[in-house]
Amino acid sequence: MDNFSFYNPTRIEFGTGKERLIGEILAQHGIKKVLLAYGSERIKGDGLFASVSASLNEQGIPFVACGGIVSNPLISKVRDAIALAREQGVDAILSVGGGSVLDSAKAIAAGALYQGDVWDLFVGKGQIEAALPVFAILTLAATGSEMNSGAVVTNDDTKEKFAINSVHTFPKVSIVNPALMQTVSRDYLVYSAADIIAHSIEGYFTAKVQPKIQSRLVESVIATVLETTEQLLADPADYNARAEFAWAATLALNGLTYAGTSGFGYPNHMIEHALSALFNVPHGAGLSVVMPAWMRWYQGQNPAQFERFAQQLFGLNTAEEGIAALEKWFDKIGTPTRLSQLGITEADLPAILENLKGNARWFGLAETYTQDVLATILRHAM
Amino acid sequence: MDNFSFYNPTRIEFGTGKERLIGEILAQHGIKKVLLAYGSERIKGDGLFASVSASLNEQGIPFVACGGIVSNPLISKVRDAIALAREQGVDAILSVGGGSVLDSAKAIAAGALYQGDVWDLFVGKGQIEAALPVFAILTLAATGSEMNSGAVVTNDDTKEKFAINSVHTFPKVSIVNPALMQTVSRDYLVYSAADIIAHSIEGYFTAKVQPKIQSRLVESVIATVLETTEQLLADPADYNARAEFAWAATLALNGLTYAGTSGFGYPNHMIEHALSALFNVPHGAGLSVVMPAWMRWYQGQNPAQFERFAQQLFGLNTAEEGIAALEKWFDKIGTPTRLSQLGITEADLPAILENLKGNARWFGLAETYTQDVLATILRHAM
Repeated sequence: MDNFSFYNPTRIEFGTGKERLIGEILAQHGIKKVLLAYGSERIKGDGLFASVSASLNEQGIPFVACGGIVSNPLISKVRDAIALAREQGVDAILSVGGGSVLDSAKAIAAGALYQGDVWDLFVGKGQIEAALPVFAILTLAATGSEMNSGAVVTNDDTKEKFAINSVHTFPKVSIVNPALMQTVSRDYLVYSAADIIAHSIEGYFTAKVQPKIQSRLVESVIATVLETTEQLLADPADYNARAEFAWAATLALNGLTYAGTSGFGYPNHMIEHALSALFNVPHGAGLSVVMPAWMRWYQGQNPAQFERFAQQLFGLNTAEEGIAALEKWFDKIGTPTRLSQLGITEADLPAILENLKGNARWFGLAETYTQDVLATILRHAM
Repeated sequence: MDNFSFYNPTRIEFGTGKERLIGEILAQHGIKKVLLAYGSERIKGDGLFASVSASLNEQGIPFVACGGIVSNPLISKVRDAIALAREQGVDAILSVGGGSVLDSAKAIAAGALYQGDVWDLFVGKGQIEAALPVFAILTLAATGSEMNSGAVVTNDDTKEKFAINSVHTFPKVSIVNPALMQTVSRDYLVYSAADIIAHSIEGYFTAKVQPKIQSRLVESVIATVLETTEQLLADPADYNARAEFAWAATLALNGLTYAGTSGFGYPNHMIEHALSALFNVPHGAGLSVVMPAWMRWYQGQNPAQFERFAQQLFGLNTAEEGIAALEKWFDKIGTPTRLSQLGITEADLPAILENLKGNARWFGLAETYTQDVLATILRHAM
């Protein structure tokens, strides 16, 4: 077990009706005016926007609405929102949506207090020294952004999909009400399942130091995703399954399962970021394509852990059986496992490989993930 | 899954050599003078006291040493330390020791800013409105106190062993260096194992709402304790086993495994507190006696979970087999499973039952745990 620091000051308010506490929570934090970031106008149809507005109004906290944040969120939109936040003099950002909205909110919060262009913070040209406080009401469980300090945004000019991370960008409070997630589409549910599994396996398979207790925690998360995804596909109204799925999503990337591990990378995310940056595929759909392909290429580098995965999660014996079982499970729930299902063909390979050059450097994986290696992995997914 | 709030702002600094950061950490928090609470003088022999002093001196932070805190720590000592803290005008408490020292440190921190007698805070006569910041260097992994806000102290006059809990008593930073635990005696190692298992099973078995993901996390903790205790008995110098054991202790009671559960109690702790308050037995030793006895009495109220326990932890089928396996494991590692091993006989039962009247009320369990029920459980442990 390697030395580590664990610090996660985000307060999670989990459960039914908790979104109605948002005004009170902002008031407790002394917030005077807030930028309300959101995605599609759906939240105006389903009553969430009204409920949040009412809660803010009750506390006399004015808000500036900023909608239209898309999946694989864009830095151009973040820039616009920063301008709006400054112009309106808000002192906090409230995200109402899924991981894309929340990641944008973190970038807005950091960018609003940074003198230069916000993209500087993604490419190491600037440091996050401060950020406006971020609050969240989550409507989709997948990215884990509700309880970590990371934010992934795509630069629409350069087609780079990079991240920021800072002690200043932990949400102060994240409200996770599984009932708000009941209307998530079948597609986005299964993409989310793939995303949570990806967050879980990156460290699990690639860490040079991987404590057994951490492997057990990761397996607890994955087993829960395997079970509750099927329960939700059978019955989207199953609140308990929705809740356990959501909590698994939070635990998968709140730092807990990574404590004491070291020497790990995020190769699946590195590869997927090229797919979603270039072809705007849903992140989870990209990941379910990349993972089995990457696992087949990588398994020989950590055979014992791949056997453990097969045994603990699927009751099987060999590494290859475990990989095949995961792939088969992705097929069963209906998330893609082939590039062709994303509309990507052999002809697109050169562009993907070109985009991956920058990603590999950014992820610190350029030495291992040469163009040849990446081509081999991608061909596994053809 | 029930509604919950999860908030745990303690920063954990885990690993070798981390205790040498203590001066720097206190300086970061603006601490000017600190009360250094500790237990036996052993820390002066093994270099820890010197190392901590040097780190504080480097940062120019004066300290007032306050040693002599005992296992099953006493409110009389806490009162003395509060007087010292006030007299010396310290602005923080640093605990160097195990759970007893740290629990005392939390009580000192809260008591120093409370106008009345500190015991008021344990019996509901006063509220914790503030506390001095608490920092910890842990030398024994067992109680989980390093990452929670609870503190258990015994009133030496009334023989009551009660607890406080407040958002103000989370340690700001806890340093957990498994190497400092290498000299823990064989006895205290196995008592600690029993303590961690007790923290894990109280909710696991008694919660009316117990999400499956939380059961999986609890089983991850217990499986780690079962495995690493045996590794440490075979080789006390096994750093990795020591580290996983310590991290399991932290996770068992930092709120994580209890999130979303509800309707649970701490019956094993309730019963054990009478044993340690009256006979000063080590807390973990008392717990390993109480647990199998309590489990035999309780199992019929939650048969499915007891079967799950047998299956997941011991690969066995029935509830009774699981209980017997745990008891046998306690015997194997050398922690007691019978009251007689603690020097307690049938003649002591009336005094224990009398003490338990107050405990049962304090723990909110008086309705279920009548004198008859408690006598039945205790007789299982004869």
